[in-house]
Amino acid sequence: MTSAPPSGPGAFPKPSLAGSQLRRLGIDTGAEHVVYLRRDSPICRSEGFGPHSRLELRAGNRCMLAALNIVHAELLGVDEVGLSESAWQWLRPQADERVMLAHPASVDSLADVRAKIYGRSLDATQLHDVVRDIVLHRYSHIELAAFITACGGDHLGLNEITALTAAMVDTGTRLHWPQAVVVDKHCIGGLAGNRTTPIVVAIAAAMGLLMPKTSSRAITSPAGTADTMAMLAPVELDEPTMRRTVETCGGCIVWGGSMNMAPADDILIRVERALDIDSMGQLVASVLSKKIAAGSTHVVIDIPSGPTAKVRDPAQAQLLARLLRQVADAFGLQLHVLISDGSQPVGRGIGPALEAHDVLAVLRNAPEAPADLRQHALAVAAAVLELGAAAAPGKGLAMASQCLASGEAWARFQMICAAQGGLRTPGVAGFRQPVTAPHAGRVAAIDNRRISRVAKLAGAPSAPLAGLTLDVHLGDAVAAGQPLFTLHAQSPGELAYAMEYVSRHPCIIGVEEPR
Amino acid sequence: MTSAPPSGPGAFPKPSLAGSQLRRLGIDTGAEHVVYLRRDSPICRSEGFGPHSRLELRAGNRCMLAALNIVHAELLGVDEVGLSESAWQWLRPQADERVMLAHPASVDSLADVRAKIYGRSLDATQLHDVVRDIVLHRYSHIELAAFITACGGDHLGLNEITALTAAMVDTGTRLHWPQAVVVDKHCIGGLAGNRTTPIVVAIAAAMGLLMPKTSSRAITSPAGTADTMAMLAPVELDEPTMRRTVETCGGCIVWGGSMNMAPADDILIRVERALDIDSMGQLVASVLSKKIAAGSTHVVIDIPSGPTAKVRDPAQAQLLARLLRQVADAFGLQLHVLISDGSQPVGRGIGPALEAHDVLAVLRNAPEAPADLRQHALAVAAAVLELGAAAAPGKGLAMASQCLASGEAWARFQMICAAQGGLRTPGVAGFRQPVTAPHAGRVAAIDNRRISRVAKLAGAPSAPLAGLTLDVHLGDAVAAGQPLFTLHAQSPGELAYAMEYVSRHPCIIGVEEPR
Repeated sequence: MTSAPPSGPGAFPKPSLAGSQLRRLGIDTGAEHVVYLRRDSPICRSEGFGPHSRLELRAGNRCMLAALNIVHAELLGVDEVGLSESAWQWLRPQADERVMLAHPASVDSLADVRAKIYGRSLDATQLHDVVRDIVLHRYSHIELAAFITACGGDHLGLNEITALTAAMVDTGTRLHWPQAVVVDKHCIGGLAGNRTTPIVVAIAAAMGLLMPKTSSRAITSPAGTADTMAMLAPVELDEPTMRRTVETCGGCIVWGGSMNMAPADDILIRVERALDIDSMGQLVASVLSKKIAAGSTHVVIDIPSGPTAKVRDPAQAQLLARLLRQVADAFGLQLHVLISDGSQPVGRGIGPALEAHDVLAVLRNAPEAPADLRQHALAVAAAVLELGAAAAPGKGLAMASQCLASGEAWARFQMICAAQGGLRTPGVAGFRQPVTAPHAGRVAAIDNRRISRVAKLAGAPSAPLAGLTLDVHLGDAVAAGQPLFTLHAQSPGELAYAMEYVSRHPCIIGVEEPR
Repeated sequence: MTSAPPSGPGAFPKPSLAGSQLRRLGIDTGAEHVVYLRRDSPICRSEGFGPHSRLELRAGNRCMLAALNIVHAELLGVDEVGLSESAWQWLRPQADERVMLAHPASVDSLADVRAKIYGRSLDATQLHDVVRDIVLHRYSHIELAAFITACGGDHLGLNEITALTAAMVDTGTRLHWPQAVVVDKHCIGGLAGNRTTPIVVAIAAAMGLLMPKTSSRAITSPAGTADTMAMLAPVELDEPTMRRTVETCGGCIVWGGSMNMAPADDILIRVERALDIDSMGQLVASVLSKKIAAGSTHVVIDIPSGPTAKVRDPAQAQLLARLLRQVADAFGLQLHVLISDGSQPVGRGIGPALEAHDVLAVLRNAPEAPADLRQHALAVAAAVLELGAAAAPGKGLAMASQCLASGEAWARFQMICAAQGGLRTPGVAGFRQPVTAPHAGRVAAIDNRRISRVAKLAGAPSAPLAGLTLDVHLGDAVAAGQPLFTLHAQSPGELAYAMEYVSRHPCIIGVEEPR
């Protein structure tokens, strides 16, 4: 006991942190960083930490915020600090490295989020600060949810969407290309199948355009473009290999996840999907930030519109198209928007390998190639060729069709695959079962969302050969017992599980009885 | 491989769940339920579960939604299902009970939350559905954050606040009392100290009113009323013991946490505090739902207003008072609002035991009793006596003062403590250190928030003797080196840690140099 006043920051010892040895606990909590401590650990006692305290961890010059889980049992030593998988990968501690734990400094940009909740507009500086703190993982998941909700319901104005897009580009890597024209395409998702990208890249590159395509893996869908492409060639390329591929072939189709382009988008999108909140402003910022960061100058956006697609009707598609154009203008990005038919899946296969088979069939001009996928890929390719000035206005479709029919596109695709590490042949799942029409009639509706759900229950995308193939299209006449679609699975359990769902949801493909 | 069509829900076996043995992992994740599975477990493989999937668990007739964490390492057997502490307590599995896991049915009320995000008003049925699902723990933390954010920024209208209040009452236990008049009091927090409740209950009960007080433990403050009262008597009473206490003594001061009154509030408030979002509508619903659920008919609400209190200025206090009255009217609740001085803490001690010492000193008419606490408690008691018609208008203060001065209040308090299980004497912390004025001058400001922070760093409330005592009030003249406040801690480490914070924040108590 002493009565001396504090004489400065150094006068009182901090509680000793010696012995705060890091331990990888092997718990994958998703994207949120979690740190584990024992309740009776000196650090919990001295700092008054409890479950869901936020902590700041420092190791060397690396810093991280994390949520605290308190461990009661003997999972940890009393002096140990456990890390979740994402926390371990973020902090990347060296062997025997020790960690400092403290109450985190307040995250000042949260005041901007609160201002937004109260209906105020945020300026470019405020949005930049918010996005920077998000990229630094300084926001908890509930804080991310608050930001997304505050911006949801179309509460973002045009200036805010533009500033959010810029902030998302500026807080990540931005690729630069020597060419003046760099083309790209993007499809506003929600439609099963529809795997046009490899075909479009092959045609655009064959016709002399530069199309360095980075794609994502599936988050909630049965396959992302990167998942499908991974069935055909390596997609996890480092930047030098990707650049070499683009230089030699004029294009590539790689996974963008390792390139840190618009990383805020990857963080926000997971929470948006978990909340199932579709905000047009955030969608525009998400799509355009990735394109700008990839160095694209001319982008075709495909918006399928249909009752079970992401965009439900043409009016909503027009609104979205206008907003995309307005924001693209602010960045000097040339945009062409295609509003396409989103009433049913495009192509036959749903799932990484099954979609890859469709892509190969179209590229090879195989007789069994799905005509709808071929036609839609040609329409997108035509728009890309015209926007990139490889084809004169109105001449894109003829050029694309000729490129495909002549085998040039297939040759270019093989060249790209070789440069990425070698063309692969996708396999076929061992367990298959058709789902048949309960009665004769005409195919009246195909539920995109449930089709995707079934493909996922069958194992896609983590079981890459799994998914389903469609045996009919809208309007087809079918006989009772005729296959509507066929499930593909890599294990009997997954097949059974998907079938159980199908049996409970008879209207995945609706067959209208003849009158 | 078969080509038979599905013949009904029973035709395809569900993947076997035999072997899904529950295991308590001893991880406290806070309020959010978490379930742990190995990535290679049959259930993860067959259902396609991944980190942050939401799962439905069923054991017997109990059902629970939980977030999934994937365990890589050898923390679990491949057939085991690990549960976090809150999940274990919610599901309360019997020995060797097995659990069924499945994709959760969709939570329909989330559509109402989305509607609210889009600016639509919710009606009573919608708000009831939302609150019911929250109480059933069907909302994830990010979904709670979305609901709170959508209602924040004063986006709730009067009808919505009333409906939210009703829903919060209806989804929990509601106490009923035979008496026509049941008084209560509540203080809108943010002010350190200010522990008037035990004094007010003693006076009201001694003067013949019924005051069955249920209080909370601290969530983010250094002490809740239940924490302080626990220093003086047992507070974790079952309902029969509480009712016996109220019948024999006319009042009680117990912890309300075990009584399941307005349980949605407890869930929402944790997320609100973590987000640091103050929404007036949610505050009103939170306060009034607890009072209505407790069976109160006449309630005095104390709103301290000051620059570092929860309510920053008198205009805001008036707005809040009006909203409280309007919603109370809808429930036939008689309300009296006191707007008090929130410019500095009330009383000397901050922390459970230190506040209990203040309460005892006032009740015993000790010469060292803090005059401000005595005066404020009498003002609240006077309002309670008048609102409950124990005192004529304008006569409450004289009656309360007489009751306290005569020892009647102290006698009643001892009687209440005896009925609750016996009066206790709070101890004194072993490690104390004064913080002194850096120079002579006048005390110009006391930062409530930092005072609370320091008390918590010293160990309050989990170290119940810890906290601080104030040695000065606003306006006091002090000499250089004169104590401003004194830290109390139960360990040297905690004392050092609080002092370290004090040394970095010299303006916790601002001393203005004489001109």
